[in-house]
Amino acid sequence: MKRPESDKLFEQRKAGFIEAWKEFICFPSVSSDPAHDTDCRRCAEWLVAGIARSGLNARLIETPGKPLVLGERIGKSGRPAILLYGHYDVQPVDPVDEWITPPFSPEIRGGRMFGRGAQDNKGQFTYAWKAIETVLAECDPRITVKVIIEGEEESGSSGTSAVLPDLRRELSADILMSCDTGTVAPGIPTITLGLRGMAYMTVTLEGPLMDLHSGAHGGKAPNPATELARLLATLHNDEGGIAVDGFYDGVWEPTEEQRRLLAAAPFDPREYERATGVAAVAGESRFSPAERVGLRPALDVNGISSGYCGHGIKTIIPKSASSKISVRLVPGQEPERVLKLLEMHLVSKAPAGLKLTIGEKGAAGGAVSLDPHSRYARQAADVLHEITGKQAVFSWCGASIPVISLLSQVSGAEPLMVGFGSDEEDRVHAPNESFSLEQFKDGFGFVATFVAGL
Amino acid sequence: MKRPESDKLFEQRKAGFIEAWKEFICFPSVSSDPAHDTDCRRCAEWLVAGIARSGLNARLIETPGKPLVLGERIGKSGRPAILLYGHYDVQPVDPVDEWITPPFSPEIRGGRMFGRGAQDNKGQFTYAWKAIETVLAECDPRITVKVIIEGEEESGSSGTSAVLPDLRRELSADILMSCDTGTVAPGIPTITLGLRGMAYMTVTLEGPLMDLHSGAHGGKAPNPATELARLLATLHNDEGGIAVDGFYDGVWEPTEEQRRLLAAAPFDPREYERATGVAAVAGESRFSPAERVGLRPALDVNGISSGYCGHGIKTIIPKSASSKISVRLVPGQEPERVLKLLEMHLVSKAPAGLKLTIGEKGAAGGAVSLDPHSRYARQAADVLHEITGKQAVFSWCGASIPVISLLSQVSGAEPLMVGFGSDEEDRVHAPNESFSLEQFKDGFGFVATFVAGL
Repeated sequence: MKRPESDKLFEQRKAGFIEAWKEFICFPSVSSDPAHDTDCRRCAEWLVAGIARSGLNARLIETPGKPLVLGERIGKSGRPAILLYGHYDVQPVDPVDEWITPPFSPEIRGGRMFGRGAQDNKGQFTYAWKAIETVLAECDPRITVKVIIEGEEESGSSGTSAVLPDLRRELSADILMSCDTGTVAPGIPTITLGLRGMAYMTVTLEGPLMDLHSGAHGGKAPNPATELARLLATLHNDEGGIAVDGFYDGVWEPTEEQRRLLAAAPFDPREYERATGVAAVAGESRFSPAERVGLRPALDVNGISSGYCGHGIKTIIPKSASSKISVRLVPGQEPERVLKLLEMHLVSKAPAGLKLTIGEKGAAGGAVSLDPHSRYARQAADVLHEITGKQAVFSWCGASIPVISLLSQVSGAEPLMVGFGSDEEDRVHAPNESFSLEQFKDGFGFVATFVAGL
Repeated sequence: MKRPESDKLFEQRKAGFIEAWKEFICFPSVSSDPAHDTDCRRCAEWLVAGIARSGLNARLIETPGKPLVLGERIGKSGRPAILLYGHYDVQPVDPVDEWITPPFSPEIRGGRMFGRGAQDNKGQFTYAWKAIETVLAECDPRITVKVIIEGEEESGSSGTSAVLPDLRRELSADILMSCDTGTVAPGIPTITLGLRGMAYMTVTLEGPLMDLHSGAHGGKAPNPATELARLLATLHNDEGGIAVDGFYDGVWEPTEEQRRLLAAAPFDPREYERATGVAAVAGESRFSPAERVGLRPALDVNGISSGYCGHGIKTIIPKSASSKISVRLVPGQEPERVLKLLEMHLVSKAPAGLKLTIGEKGAAGGAVSLDPHSRYARQAADVLHEITGKQAVFSWCGASIPVISLLSQVSGAEPLMVGFGSDEEDRVHAPNESFSLEQFKDGFGFVATFVAGL
């Protein structure tokens, strides 16, 4: 298949693709919030029906968490097997009042689909799914096609991880394709060779039985808000590194080839600042921005809440203060061990007179690192060139897809991560997430051509 | 008047007192929230009518902020004039779901009145008001009685402060009585010789245009939550002192007599911990807890808000982070100057790549320091002994009553601050604020006896 043919097929079937994409977004499948459990299940059931209509045997698999969706179409013996991975869950939508249109009411404006999950991962999964559906219907290459769609990617994949080892036979494949990554810059075809691992926790300081009057108690009662700030300030050193004892133990130093490939991918500081509103000034100063995100770990405070932040003033010593912290990990770091180090750090620095609690902690998968010289990586690069007319670049993505490393072991398949998202442009995880129809079409073209050419 | 007589009068009139107290609490007169502007005005109008029924000429005075209520009954020439100060505004009620009964639906349970303002200052003002009303009706001492009730004590008194200088004639008096202070411990009669001044500001760090994905950006984009924590952590040193350049310049060192009088007032660390839930471990270690609150300045973070703090995890770099900070000041510190120093500190430590904004700042009055040997202070000590059977103690209260120092200048009156609140027990500024009927009755007895004896 060549570009003109995939374009023609896309135009013929486009209306149906967009309808499926919109229906998919309508499910408020926020996996981190138990209030949306039923929405997640309904979304999974909708997928089972949809995957079946695409010509695969499809079914729901229960897990201790959110259900999995599996699909399978066995091909001709000796032909390769591709396993397509996606996730149907999405991030929370707060702050909901910043959305121009409601997050679960998808709308196309200016050539972009808006809604929570419009890109991550409902949009990106949909083009890959529809590309495979189209290839099977129009020019069946007789390969084996499998799909797995989980419902916990945004919340640690613990239920998914628990059942994967029992699905070795069902999942065995040659290529594990995921379209949950992005491009290094809008319009630059990108093959992702690395993902970071992730772990997270909530830390809470509790003090007074109630908010105290800051006049009557200021200088006497320990202040959870002040002390939490002081505690969080101990997590980084002044050079942007992470100041948790043992945190960097075992971290793989970037190789020369990794640094060279990363340097070849364009990073334009001005474009970054235009798209995000900030300069790329965080992290360890001895690495480039792309290296800091792709090859080095990071620790971020995801939220802090304490006391009164409404109109005017309320002069209190808050009764408690709480913060969410997450780390992104690289090869050589074991998530559970890093969590333990972080907890030990926080406990050892806990302020006098306040009660420190670690809550809601978890490890969401280890890091992934791939070989740029593998057969499928080279094949993908050729197809990307064919579809986009541009040379593909290799990248190490700073994000995490918790189960990719486990899924690769269980299925015996080599991961191939090619996505068309542009996280800043697409406002992934933020209000007004969107994905352009142009990106969607490129994604369709890539997957269709790659699969047809296997 | 002696205790038996004030007790008898109290019992005769108690039902009416409680009715007035409850009606007063029903007004949601939260001065810091513009949504309650009308409630504040209605409350002030209710007071004008009530003060008039007590036999004073009463009227509303407009200010650039909330209206003032003035009342006046001119006595016999040559007799002393007393000016009673109170405030009708209250603190916000958040977190509102922690209230057992709604904050503006007063209810008596177990001998305590519950509701926002039940103590601060609606309860304490009501006993003083009703004591004066009773004395005028039952045994008129022919003194001049004036009252001033402001509506901005909890939000900086800027409107009140603007008009006070024009009210010299109306407010001129010998004694400025305020019942907005408390006791050093429940049941210990206390004369407050000092108040701290107060100033406050909001500091906000803004970064990304939207919340960013912490995987794609962690180690690249500066994090407002992390950086705000690091910024707030620079405000104190490791010895509990305030690390803002010039902050302590001019601060009056505690005198020997102040330290002796403070040491005489009971401070029981175990009782403090029982009442508040925390040990008195904050502040400068070289001073006692009572000295740290009464004679030393303090800086508290009153609230922090950034990013996601709901259920589960949301791995973002928040677009902004905001915090409210307030300082309590002692004699020798000029509030406006301290605000400037604090702002200079924050600006000089502002993190790279983020925008720092100082908002909603203000100075809410300077500190007050009084002479324990004055005529009225000694007279008050005698009445307290008569009413409670206990020796009164002198205290320096850590709280602020923004206009007391200005009001004392304008009226030419000597402040006399005797209150019966017990801030921890009474949960002042917190959910489930209350005031016991016993405290209310002691307050009534003190004011009635003091005024009748002038």
